[in-house]
Amino acid sequence: MIEPLDNLVNALCQLPTIGKKTALRLALHLLERPQEELDMLSQCIASIKSSIVVCKRCFNYGTTDLCDVCSSTARDTSVICVVEKPQDVLVFERTGIFRGLYHVMGGVLSPINGITADKLRIEELRARLAGGEVRELVLGLGASAEAETTCLYLARVFSGMKLKITLLARGVPAGTELEYIDQITLNQALHERVEISYKVES
Amino acid sequence: MIEPLDNLVNALCQLPTIGKKTALRLALHLLERPQEELDMLSQCIASIKSSIVVCKRCFNYGTTDLCDVCSSTARDTSVICVVEKPQDVLVFERTGIFRGLYHVMGGVLSPINGITADKLRIEELRARLAGGEVRELVLGLGASAEAETTCLYLARVFSGMKLKITLLARGVPAGTELEYIDQITLNQALHERVEISYKVES
Repeated sequence: MIEPLDNLVNALCQLPTIGKKTALRLALHLLERPQEELDMLSQCIASIKSSIVVCKRCFNYGTTDLCDVCSSTARDTSVICVVEKPQDVLVFERTGIFRGLYHVMGGVLSPINGITADKLRIEELRARLAGGEVRELVLGLGASAEAETTCLYLARVFSGMKLKITLLARGVPAGTELEYIDQITLNQALHERVEISYKVES
Repeated sequence: MIEPLDNLVNALCQLPTIGKKTALRLALHLLERPQEELDMLSQCIASIKSSIVVCKRCFNYGTTDLCDVCSSTARDTSVICVVEKPQDVLVFERTGIFRGLYHVMGGVLSPINGITADKLRIEELRARLAGGEVRELVLGLGASAEAETTCLYLARVFSGMKLKITLLARGVPAGTELEYIDQITLNQALHERVEISYKVES
């Protein structure tokens, strides 16, 4: 294969989910697009790191020292949702329900991969909680074994503070048929079953 | 979503096979790569159009006026393989068997899509054949209805010349179970069945 095409294919291959065949397909597609479109994509890629700043308060991605959430005046500063990665903030924001602030942990405990408590942003969280303004800490860390361990760890670390610590509800996800639910999820859903009451309007 | 990330996601979304979710995944991946890697990819994308030249003889992609195949002295200049797109040249080159030259048609006949004979590089092919050096024209155009029509058309156009015109064999592709073969392919494979002889070494 000719060199410039080969270089582009190899560069595209470095991306996740893109193999040699897809890379070639993308490269040949790019070759047929107008130069402005290539310049646009190329510019976006080259500048992405320098145009995105990590928020100095919550470690979410932003464009200034404080991210959009932290610099908003419309957020409830008494609630902090602890998440693993910056992209998890996007997931929560998409619901449009959560109006509090975030704290990006930078990972979950996984000693086997060298991620111990000192690698997470726990001290930074402690500093934010020290102000006394925060009343609730929502642990929004997912439901993997590592995430659950991290939740328990955080619950213990901050147990001494005057603070409500909550966990995302575990249970049957929407739209699922019961026969496909795993045993652990079903056990949790059963254990944390919720009473519903049917009220007759009088 | 913050603007620079949004811009990158939108630019990536323009690529084939890449939807909104994959684009976000790729963007977040890029954000965590070293700047040199981003510069490399960005540079490859921006320069791909200007660094690739269409060969003035066979219309394959290359880096100079004549592509690698046309400028090679090791090729058999008496055979020309007619292909639809430049990427088809790559497919044939990968086999390592074909040692002749190519002629990229730039499409196959498809009047319904406005691709009539004058849109293809037929006159350019006629000019190449006029020299009299070419003895065989291999029609390497695939087996779609449009490609087959184009093959028949080319066979008619060049029928007056002292030239062997050949077609890629049609038949059962390697590794296929017969029950999954379509009727047309099986009919062709049956019609063009080949005699095999078992010779006892004497």
